[in-house]
Amino acid sequence: MSDVFAQLKSIVGAKGFSEDPAEIAPHLEEWRSKYTGKSPLLLKPASTQEVSAILTLCHATNTAVVPQGGNTGLVGAQIPFNGEILITLARMNTIRAVDAKDASLVADAGVVLANAQKAADDAGLMVALSLASEGTTTLGGLISTNAGGVNVLRYGMMREQVLGLEVVLADGKKLDLLRTLRKDNTGYDLKQLFIGAEGTLGIITAAAIKLFPKPEERATAFVAVPDVHAATALLAILQDRTNGLLNAFELMSRDGLDLVLEHVAGARDPLSAPSPWYVLCEASGIKGIGAVFESALEKTLEDGVAADAAIAASETQRAALWNLREAMSEAQKAEGPSLKHDVSVPVSAAADFIATAITAVAHRLPQARPVPFGHLGDGNLHFNFQMARGSDPKAYLAHWDEIQQIVHDIVHEHGGSFSAEHGVGIMKRAALKRYKSAAEVEMMRTLKRTFDPKNILNPGKLIPD
Amino acid sequence: MSDVFAQLKSIVGAKGFSEDPAEIAPHLEEWRSKYTGKSPLLLKPASTQEVSAILTLCHATNTAVVPQGGNTGLVGAQIPFNGEILITLARMNTIRAVDAKDASLVADAGVVLANAQKAADDAGLMVALSLASEGTTTLGGLISTNAGGVNVLRYGMMREQVLGLEVVLADGKKLDLLRTLRKDNTGYDLKQLFIGAEGTLGIITAAAIKLFPKPEERATAFVAVPDVHAATALLAILQDRTNGLLNAFELMSRDGLDLVLEHVAGARDPLSAPSPWYVLCEASGIKGIGAVFESALEKTLEDGVAADAAIAASETQRAALWNLREAMSEAQKAEGPSLKHDVSVPVSAAADFIATAITAVAHRLPQARPVPFGHLGDGNLHFNFQMARGSDPKAYLAHWDEIQQIVHDIVHEHGGSFSAEHGVGIMKRAALKRYKSAAEVEMMRTLKRTFDPKNILNPGKLIPD
Repeated sequence: MSDVFAQLKSIVGAKGFSEDPAEIAPHLEEWRSKYTGKSPLLLKPASTQEVSAILTLCHATNTAVVPQGGNTGLVGAQIPFNGEILITLARMNTIRAVDAKDASLVADAGVVLANAQKAADDAGLMVALSLASEGTTTLGGLISTNAGGVNVLRYGMMREQVLGLEVVLADGKKLDLLRTLRKDNTGYDLKQLFIGAEGTLGIITAAAIKLFPKPEERATAFVAVPDVHAATALLAILQDRTNGLLNAFELMSRDGLDLVLEHVAGARDPLSAPSPWYVLCEASGIKGIGAVFESALEKTLEDGVAADAAIAASETQRAALWNLREAMSEAQKAEGPSLKHDVSVPVSAAADFIATAITAVAHRLPQARPVPFGHLGDGNLHFNFQMARGSDPKAYLAHWDEIQQIVHDIVHEHGGSFSAEHGVGIMKRAALKRYKSAAEVEMMRTLKRTFDPKNILNPGKLIPD
Repeated sequence: MSDVFAQLKSIVGAKGFSEDPAEIAPHLEEWRSKYTGKSPLLLKPASTQEVSAILTLCHATNTAVVPQGGNTGLVGAQIPFNGEILITLARMNTIRAVDAKDASLVADAGVVLANAQKAADDAGLMVALSLASEGTTTLGGLISTNAGGVNVLRYGMMREQVLGLEVVLADGKKLDLLRTLRKDNTGYDLKQLFIGAEGTLGIITAAAIKLFPKPEERATAFVAVPDVHAATALLAILQDRTNGLLNAFELMSRDGLDLVLEHVAGARDPLSAPSPWYVLCEASGIKGIGAVFESALEKTLEDGVAADAAIAASETQRAALWNLREAMSEAQKAEGPSLKHDVSVPVSAAADFIATAITAVAHRLPQARPVPFGHLGDGNLHFNFQMARGSDPKAYLAHWDEIQQIVHDIVHEHGGSFSAEHGVGIMKRAALKRYKSAAEVEMMRTLKRTFDPKNILNPGKLIPD
């Protein structure tokens, strides 16, 4: 092994590795401290050629590696649990090209999302992807996890942003799929295999992504609705009237709002009377979208679909409305521990799913306080249950697996997914085995065996044992 | 073999097969008569179970099959060249569900696109995909070829429309990926493998696709531009000002327009002075998009990006402008034979590609008359060369392979694709081998070997020998 290490170190040169535990440590721990790994060696290749040489050697010597982007993942996919060698592409951070006419950006996989956003902005365009961790996450990590974020309703997940990829395969071979074409029907679309594969089929070293025109106008409203059925009806009406220009449609309950009002400094209820449910919605695009959005909203108030609405009249008011939604995680954390789920269902099944799952969890754990919220426009709910005040956190969190299975079973019955955005990693491998058909699991295993026969790429992740 | 045939016939029952040459004949010939195949048996399964039983038997007996949708493909992928058994899903034509709240449609693969469009329309929504053959093409065929069409600029290719698939694998196993979720990060996205695979990895038996709100307003213009550089500049400006609401941006040359004016009854030049190049462009969406579009266009006229423009003032005028573009193929056909190419390049490379390729072809075949046209907004050009009047068609068409290689080489140098929309089939397997890297071809072969080890699914298509 020490011989392999010496060869690896010579591939990347003095600046390209670390064996210093202090430097490696931040790469070993998931940011919520849920997972901690160990690794004797951190490799920091500076080029695709170096990544290729690393994997050629690792393949020849059966040496396992874990590729890591910005280490912001939530399911443990980026953590070396068994002493694997860590590979970070942080030094591969060059934006290779921004082409305004072509509306595309080509960059190394180690480029941080915020830097890609900045480069697009400088060219008068924008990257569609936006999420809380954008100052840390890298393109490689975002693509490997098919990241979502706040603009999915309008622009789709990361998969829909990717035009081309450069990938190093398990045996070190470089696969150059780095094209910026919008139309290219020339055989199997191989890049799709690596998007969302959590680094188990290859290491993404560069990507070409789409850029978009920046919206000229935006309209944001905080809307009270009597129930989740009304929320989904509101969604359909607003999508119709804005012709698909909604970029956000976020659900929260009164209980959730109350937590924000209590725990977040400066937060205030924008409406005069309480409502059991709320939607934060926003449309954006050409000049005039605001008027269309407001007129559509007025009609829903007249028709009783919506009960009340506050429309942001300034950027300050808009920020205040968004803060009610964005501070939700912080407020829940301040309130105490939660049993959490990142699930999705068809939008039309959301109301029934929420009601059914709340009833089922209440039956098993009456003290759990449901605080569902999230991207209802995509059917994606952060379906959380807050511990009752004064309870014992350890005893409460001991119900995690049991409650999760109750919730996931009901998600599954509603045609939903046990992981909408976060992926599988190590956390949801058992769920994958439980909810996927045998044929689907077997096909995943076959792909893994075929393209990483020695199981050196992020072993133990995504695919159930 | 006759025993296998007997078993296949018993699987599908009396209504489920034909050995009548007259009934089989229309399935054997590509619609331009470029390819003709042969097949002793046409199977018409009525259910996924029957498809599954068919492939189970074919797999066990090494019996090759060719799945066929609406038989509108242009590269021979749907033709049984070696006496394979033909499978049509025409009897599997049930629309299983249309969900307006969820904006999704679930249907058997044999459903004709126009019927899916109708069902969406009845629910107040629309299918994004639209193309000339929509009265004949089926969902299964459209997905298996990753079809494009006239709305790609705004809504993407077929791949971006697919939410879920039901597939029967080579060994007869059913793979149920028929979900309607917008977000579902639960392992490898297996459905991507079958989209655009031309039936070589499995037979798609059902699909869930996205639906979209119908545009409330549309604005269409026929714009004269001095050159292709100006056309791509116009595209960037209009995309910016309409905030991405362009749904069409189609290029044609004066020579192309002249062919339409000469050969198509009722066609007239909407502008007073001739121009070397034209763009037919259209924006659509919310009320007010027309005013935004027209004001943006006026600015480009003031700035000299565009030379002149005719804006449709009525639905009749709109149809007349569109007819100039849509009649292009018919006009070229009336004029005589053409050497044709379905290529794409990055939009920013289009002007240079067109100039370079025209020069190169003129050098080799001075009498060829370039008539490029197509979806410039997607970088997709139908890069055709018309035979000079009075020449010998046979002698002219004998240059097909040679000219095609000249054009494809230049496409490749410009980072482009030798098949933008049409696929590979049998026609472009040699091009695939020439322009793809060895690593990419090998990975395709590996996928094919892995998931169809007996090579019974559409053998000889897509993958080079």
